[in-house]
Amino acid sequence: MRSFVLYSRRGKTSGNFDIENLSSEGRMDLICRCISSSMFLSYKKRENTRVYVVLNGPPNPPITVCFTENSNFYPDERSTAKLIKKILSSKIEREWKEVDGVMVAKKSFQEIVSGLAGNLYILHEKGKPIKHIKENPVFILGDNIGIPKKEENRILEKGEKISLGKTKYLTSSCIAVLNWLCDNYEVD
Amino acid sequence: MRSFVLYSRRGKTSGNFDIENLSSEGRMDLICRCISSSMFLSYKKRENTRVYVVLNGPPNPPITVCFTENSNFYPDERSTAKLIKKILSSKIEREWKEVDGVMVAKKSFQEIVSGLAGNLYILHEKGKPIKHIKENPVFILGDNIGIPKKEENRILEKGEKISLGKTKYLTSSCIAVLNWLCDNYEVD
Repeated sequence: MRSFVLYSRRGKTSGNFDIENLSSEGRMDLICRCISSSMFLSYKKRENTRVYVVLNGPPNPPITVCFTENSNFYPDERSTAKLIKKILSSKIEREWKEVDGVMVAKKSFQEIVSGLAGNLYILHEKGKPIKHIKENPVFILGDNIGIPKKEENRILEKGEKISLGKTKYLTSSCIAVLNWLCDNYEVD
Repeated sequence: MRSFVLYSRRGKTSGNFDIENLSSEGRMDLICRCISSSMFLSYKKRENTRVYVVLNGPPNPPITVCFTENSNFYPDERSTAKLIKKILSSKIEREWKEVDGVMVAKKSFQEIVSGLAGNLYILHEKGKPIKHIKENPVFILGDNIGIPKKEENRILEKGEKISLGKTKYLTSSCIAVLNWLCDNYEVD
């Protein structure tokens, strides 16, 4: 299993956001691109892959959504945002529930990361250049603002800081590169 | 200079398309993601990079738009689509003109490719695994349908068929990987 965990600082936690203006709504556009980049191949979704998005924006943080190959969505930002809007408009509780193949729960970043078995990689500009990826990788990524220091320090004990080089990429581009590396290079 | 050329089979050639339904409008969503993936880093646009999109859909094919660092747009699909709509609603002629930093002209795929100096790479599932990238690369990519055989054969004489592996990726993901490879590995 390959997992991506996106920490979103401002991602909305209610369905009350404007679908016509995603980039002003807690960067929901970025979130949708990351989900698409994690899960989509040409004409199909990836198997054995999942992406968790931890939404920490107003009004009810934290809420986590988890997209898998069973999630009912398309690669474009608007349709993904529509699905997130539908999910966030439903009653969300501590335990996971499913809406259109997407899992959702009131769970925090630390809860999600602690619950994932696998080898943890934290993408960070000061990380080591990525070389070998071990099996069952869990890639932790921030949004355009990044993961808060306190949250990051807590997970650093469990994982390794890696980098894709000196250039700072869009998070969705990082995910595309990580997927490609996992697909094409031997995983230890 | 790094160049991407996207051959779009159905990309609209008038501004008369529905911004609320980009995926049903000649896959304008895919086109916008490819432009974003070509040109955007975190918080800034790439220098010395440009992306040509050759639109071959109805009603006035072919039309080519060229985005550079001077183009006035953002990474999200909707705002990019709005800009394309504005450009395509203007009078487009044989010679290049500029609209909000985007160049546009009634030019065909062959004209664009012939006019580009550099080392031509045609992304193709039957290509050789990518290894060394020479200077001034020009990457030719198809959309979800692919480049017509006749068009492809004409440019194959001038370039090399390369591949990113056995997996068929979204075109926007291919662009993210190609950009990363060019950034991080020595270009001969």
